[in-house]
Amino acid sequence: MNSPATPQSWEQRADEYSLYGFTDLPSVAQRGTVVVTHGEGPYIVDVHGKRYLDANSGLWNMVAGFDHRGLIEAAKAQYERFPGYHSFFGRMSDQTVMLSEKLVEVSPFSRGKVFYTNSGSEANDTMVKMLWFLHRAEGNPNRRKILTRWNAYHGVTAVSASMTGKPYNEVFGLPLPGFIHLGCPHYWRFGEAGETEEQFVARLARELEEVILREGADTIAGFFAEPVMGAGGVIPPAKGYFQAIQPILKKHGIPFISDEVICGFGRTGSTWGCETYGFVPDAIISSKNLTAGFFPMGAVILGPELSDRLDAAIAPIEEFPHGFTASGHPVGCAIARKAIDVVMNEGLAQNVIDKAPRMEAGLRAIMDRHENIGELRGIGYMWALEAVRDKATKTPFDSSLSVSERIANASTDEGLICRPLGQAIVLCPPFILTDAQMDEMLEKLDRALTKVFAEVA
Amino acid sequence: MNSPATPQSWEQRADEYSLYGFTDLPSVAQRGTVVVTHGEGPYIVDVHGKRYLDANSGLWNMVAGFDHRGLIEAAKAQYERFPGYHSFFGRMSDQTVMLSEKLVEVSPFSRGKVFYTNSGSEANDTMVKMLWFLHRAEGNPNRRKILTRWNAYHGVTAVSASMTGKPYNEVFGLPLPGFIHLGCPHYWRFGEAGETEEQFVARLARELEEVILREGADTIAGFFAEPVMGAGGVIPPAKGYFQAIQPILKKHGIPFISDEVICGFGRTGSTWGCETYGFVPDAIISSKNLTAGFFPMGAVILGPELSDRLDAAIAPIEEFPHGFTASGHPVGCAIARKAIDVVMNEGLAQNVIDKAPRMEAGLRAIMDRHENIGELRGIGYMWALEAVRDKATKTPFDSSLSVSERIANASTDEGLICRPLGQAIVLCPPFILTDAQMDEMLEKLDRALTKVFAEVA
Repeated sequence: MNSPATPQSWEQRADEYSLYGFTDLPSVAQRGTVVVTHGEGPYIVDVHGKRYLDANSGLWNMVAGFDHRGLIEAAKAQYERFPGYHSFFGRMSDQTVMLSEKLVEVSPFSRGKVFYTNSGSEANDTMVKMLWFLHRAEGNPNRRKILTRWNAYHGVTAVSASMTGKPYNEVFGLPLPGFIHLGCPHYWRFGEAGETEEQFVARLARELEEVILREGADTIAGFFAEPVMGAGGVIPPAKGYFQAIQPILKKHGIPFISDEVICGFGRTGSTWGCETYGFVPDAIISSKNLTAGFFPMGAVILGPELSDRLDAAIAPIEEFPHGFTASGHPVGCAIARKAIDVVMNEGLAQNVIDKAPRMEAGLRAIMDRHENIGELRGIGYMWALEAVRDKATKTPFDSSLSVSERIANASTDEGLICRPLGQAIVLCPPFILTDAQMDEMLEKLDRALTKVFAEVA
Repeated sequence: MNSPATPQSWEQRADEYSLYGFTDLPSVAQRGTVVVTHGEGPYIVDVHGKRYLDANSGLWNMVAGFDHRGLIEAAKAQYERFPGYHSFFGRMSDQTVMLSEKLVEVSPFSRGKVFYTNSGSEANDTMVKMLWFLHRAEGNPNRRKILTRWNAYHGVTAVSASMTGKPYNEVFGLPLPGFIHLGCPHYWRFGEAGETEEQFVARLARELEEVILREGADTIAGFFAEPVMGAGGVIPPAKGYFQAIQPILKKHGIPFISDEVICGFGRTGSTWGCETYGFVPDAIISSKNLTAGFFPMGAVILGPELSDRLDAAIAPIEEFPHGFTASGHPVGCAIARKAIDVVMNEGLAQNVIDKAPRMEAGLRAIMDRHENIGELRGIGYMWALEAVRDKATKTPFDSSLSVSERIANASTDEGLICRPLGQAIVLCPPFILTDAQMDEMLEKLDRALTKVFAEVA
């Protein structure tokens, strides 16, 4: 038993009891943890009363802001009505049934089935298990390898981290064997000298086919891709990328899973990222905006073909032995039903469509003012500014300068939260942002960039 | 887009849009899904107004029942205050800080650190990643194998399912390599002819040491155990089991993780199952009762040694690259703070202590009345009755008879929910159960057993 004898600051208490994840520890040591008490629209407020405009929407997810009345009321009403249940043993809540119906309705599929999890990580991990199960049941037990791309982010369970194509997973001895990372479709960074965008895409398509032939199509369980890579640093695909790769996957019978954890429900200016980029996948992974961050939830939405094949594969064993305790939690389902409505029908998705050009123009003006911004990339309400030491050669800053962390910290000092990813600064604001708040975001960012580039350039 | 042309029943809608998990499909096909609208104390109510006494507490977790006033108010108050945030980048909510402090305070540890997830599966998966990371950072990259036991249940992510020692995971091609299952400490079932309980435990301890020596201690990352196996069929350890194995683990430097997802917070009659069985582990995995089922949440609670070693291992890389979007969600943390208080300080844990003997006596009387009950086992408010064709020889029923599913279905007809696990029937009621409700549970179960044993015996 532990009874602290002396009162501690919030920051000390956070330090004493937290194993921090995804946190730059030198920044915390120097600046202290920001302990947050509440939010107002797109702002959060810390224990000292300081307000920050959160241009990350929390973690991409709180698209309706931090005190959305309709979502709060939906959550409270369901807590009054039925505050918890599961979806095992042929029982589930009425809210769960209604959300599944809604998800298939808003999906790109004519029909389909839904499986709930508590996160995007669990949803990707579940989809991998579904594919392993399916291929095995269909007589292809060697179809186990999973194809993703470098810079992809699919989560942090051991399997979803193995799918994530980031070098930091090496500290865990990941990826596990059988997780293969293909080239990242970021033309500005990975296009070769003299290579056109079309040639770059053709090269990635060739690489995919070569990998399939090298490994053997009959060893590959599925291909997962985010329409726009999110935590890889906001990387929209090179033009024509998905149109080039989907026929290759189809030819080799490899299911194509669209990880829409970030893109889903409006972020790119359409309901789904696959809609924005003109393809229909075999299944969708959803989370984040699904509940506007008000509840932990993920969902696998299976299209007609995978639904039918899984049903057929499950029938002989009479039970699919998989599921999470809180899968299809009635409060999460009630919140998700409301969140979908709020985002799609109460003007939030429309805001993204209407104001994305304004946001892009504002960021382009910032890029024009700072010679150390090498690229502006993004779509809808997800953008990144890539810091470079030399714009012409695209040479990054020395990593010891921690340039993006400095920009993020300088922004925090200004009362703006934005996210360092590699040497990029990511902006993915809540969909409720007003014009004045967008101006505030752009002005604060501009000042932070001026300060940091003066220090490091 | 899908627009159903004709109105459907709730049961049809559930079928059309759900990929059912952990559900006996023949039962659903025959009886229809039970679509649940709300609950009253320990009862749930379906769309047709039928009430069921839920002797499963949902999935072990809804220990305060399905409409606990204090928990509903705590959830609503936090939704008003701050309905969502994350714990990345050196930011977290005040509720998160306070819950971590509380968890260390109620833990068996003098000090420690907390890491949040959204489920027990994620918490076990996270703990495996932490161990892989730790050993690698300490210069032991080959320490990757995970030891668990047959009949253990640790979750359903690919890695936590690999830890789970149930044959059904074979349909996924699991366990992954490097997950080793030791003997199950169930004396009644696995004790050999003429073997005393003490000899049985000595044999399991020898097996552990032999496996460690065979594999090499320097290839083993950790040992995970539930104090009482839950979803394996409520299996309390043979007497002296943990005392026999812990010194062997210590001798070989293998961290011992107590998976308290089911046992934690009162189920066995103490705060922790490890307390009930007299051992202190290196870390605790918590979930379920942690929020009384009102919110998806898991937690890894690290004891002092693992906290210090992890801190030291993380320092040089400046960031631990792991975390879930909803880790430490403020609503979940506020609910958990209240749930711990409700369970530990508002009489619920005391109820378990006071009434467990009454429940045991009632179940023993049932066993005495039915010659097809071979064993009654359990502790606190978690019990199992094992159905057998022949009590003397412990011979099970032919599995094609689905005897436990029949008992569960006959109970459901009576308005009682209990859980078939193998050929056992599991009862793990909410801690709020009154004497009258306990009698109702026992009477309904008795009638269901009479009906089914008459059919199959």
